[in-house]
Amino acid sequence: MITVPQECRFTEPLPLDCGRSLEGVVIRYETAGKLNSDASNAILVCHALTGDAHVCGKHDPSDKKPGWWDAMIGPGKYIDTDRYFVIGTNVLGGCSGSTGPQSVDPVSGKPYRLNFPVITIADMVRAQKRVIDHLGIKQLLAVIGGSMGGMQVLQWAVSYPDAMRAIVPIATAANFSPQNIAFDWVAREAIRNDVNWKNGDYAPENSPERGLATARMLAHITYLSEETLGRKFGRSLQNKEDYDFDFTHDFAVESYLEHQGRRFVERFDANAYLFITRATDYFDLTAETGGDLAAALKNVQAKFLVVSFSSDWLFPTRQSLAIVNALLRDRKEVSFCEIRSGYGHDAFLLEVDALGRMVRDFLRKQEVRQ
Amino acid sequence: MITVPQECRFTEPLPLDCGRSLEGVVIRYETAGKLNSDASNAILVCHALTGDAHVCGKHDPSDKKPGWWDAMIGPGKYIDTDRYFVIGTNVLGGCSGSTGPQSVDPVSGKPYRLNFPVITIADMVRAQKRVIDHLGIKQLLAVIGGSMGGMQVLQWAVSYPDAMRAIVPIATAANFSPQNIAFDWVAREAIRNDVNWKNGDYAPENSPERGLATARMLAHITYLSEETLGRKFGRSLQNKEDYDFDFTHDFAVESYLEHQGRRFVERFDANAYLFITRATDYFDLTAETGGDLAAALKNVQAKFLVVSFSSDWLFPTRQSLAIVNALLRDRKEVSFCEIRSGYGHDAFLLEVDALGRMVRDFLRKQEVRQ
Repeated sequence: MITVPQECRFTEPLPLDCGRSLEGVVIRYETAGKLNSDASNAILVCHALTGDAHVCGKHDPSDKKPGWWDAMIGPGKYIDTDRYFVIGTNVLGGCSGSTGPQSVDPVSGKPYRLNFPVITIADMVRAQKRVIDHLGIKQLLAVIGGSMGGMQVLQWAVSYPDAMRAIVPIATAANFSPQNIAFDWVAREAIRNDVNWKNGDYAPENSPERGLATARMLAHITYLSEETLGRKFGRSLQNKEDYDFDFTHDFAVESYLEHQGRRFVERFDANAYLFITRATDYFDLTAETGGDLAAALKNVQAKFLVVSFSSDWLFPTRQSLAIVNALLRDRKEVSFCEIRSGYGHDAFLLEVDALGRMVRDFLRKQEVRQ
Repeated sequence: MITVPQECRFTEPLPLDCGRSLEGVVIRYETAGKLNSDASNAILVCHALTGDAHVCGKHDPSDKKPGWWDAMIGPGKYIDTDRYFVIGTNVLGGCSGSTGPQSVDPVSGKPYRLNFPVITIADMVRAQKRVIDHLGIKQLLAVIGGSMGGMQVLQWAVSYPDAMRAIVPIATAANFSPQNIAFDWVAREAIRNDVNWKNGDYAPENSPERGLATARMLAHITYLSEETLGRKFGRSLQNKEDYDFDFTHDFAVESYLEHQGRRFVERFDANAYLFITRATDYFDLTAETGGDLAAALKNVQAKFLVVSFSSDWLFPTRQSLAIVNALLRDRKEVSFCEIRSGYGHDAFLLEVDALGRMVRDFLRKQEVRQ
């Protein structure tokens, strides 16, 4: 399946939570499948921290890899593009086609860099809503996403209660935990300490790659479970019989992290990493209800399928249960499943069959108008 | 109680696991209490990653703070210096009085820096053994320590089986987990990425403070439980009503981390941090027994009291249980307790009463010659 990157350019300024607004915002999006005649089969897929609009298919038959959730989305797959019209967008603040800190500010004519406004998850969702409006969709069948994608999903249900029939927040939370805020702080310090960062004014050919790689390596540890690390690497040495007694990578797990860091800097921008992680820090559905999640969710209309993974310690099951319990207090319709998995947070991308079957069946039920 | 820093200077070179040996090694140590006539009341206390020889008391009555385990050790305290002769040493490779990477190499006349040999936990213990010999102690009553101190404790029991009657490894493991190796890798990357690091050749007044602070902040997250972070900070903002929409510290947990980082660089050296963390990475009691811990422990003679803490995710209880189970397979005498605590890994320093009572009673039993 071939998917084509498209752009939605906003004619009106986009108001933001920080009080500023952005002119000339562009949101990159892709679609797969066909919108039916009453526009009732659209599913918005929200990506995680470093994802993009390319959720499935290939841009060109020669592409080595398909979109990031191709195992889940496509003709005949769990999110069946023969049946549904699937939309992926790149988040506001990103670096994969949507307006972000490296974009040129149409007002100043120069790249925003650190002058980009600090955006929130609600700002990302506000931008996505315009894309959905642009596509002529009044009500989405579902909004689905994991991790930071799940935060967007939850925000959709709160910001636009009648804009979707169902939501599927996966491996996520109603607010970002202090432990996760702390990890983000350290990750951003690693970037800002890089001599090439220059307060955000780096040249593309001389970017803070080492700092960004360090941030990614740290994040990567939090995506894996201790079990995965033990099973996959243990204390194995990297192509050697004994320790080198130095600071190069002796251990397989060290080589693996280095590889992940190196690969990441080829595709991601350091300033975008700062802004997007900050948006996750700020995410708190209960900010305006004094911590009361049931109150925050009391106007939602969508049916919920909440999914967590047993070994996910970045977004542990009890954070999903907090959402479920708040919805039950509100007498809302909610299904919940903790999938047993050893993969940690990454399970939301790896446990395709267990998750896929559940999502497929849940979506089928939503098709029946009640 | 006043304690006095002392030095033990080795006349013979110290052989190391890496194959090299070190000339003119100095180990800083302190003692409290009195060695009895048959030298049977000596307890060696091993410090954690960034500790030192100053385990209890003050060097001067005007000192603001006593030694790092003063809540545990002193006259009438759980490790009672009216009863025991307590010895603390600074580890080889450290920066608090013992020979380490910032020391002058007596052969070249210049500081070692990165030419310092990559040392191991067994090397640290080998150096401590010389201090104990120097003090005329044939057999210690006990060797006690938490975290990296616990690794030294375990290594003592294996390297010198008849050199102590009892050991108390606390919040530790028989080998360093791949997750911990991964965190160490990221921490060292943060230091090595600092433009001031200069491959280890930094001047004291221009040291890689930001990198070292970042490493410390990361480590600090792993010392706390999610529960502690939630209870202590939650998502509280730091002296403000709303987000600043910038990258300074909005959250109390961010200010706290920054403070920890800043305080740490005042007392610790970046190169020492590299070498000591590497020693923990390399720690694996089962390296020579193909992963068989019972085989690795089969010659130990000491009685064991193994202690873990329920919310410690850096050295989880199951790693302590692995030690206990291996000892039971070897038909050794072992006591074990998991202390219920919400403090995470830091509990080994904070749960003074629960831990102290257990250690006190265990030590009393060891005094009775059997």
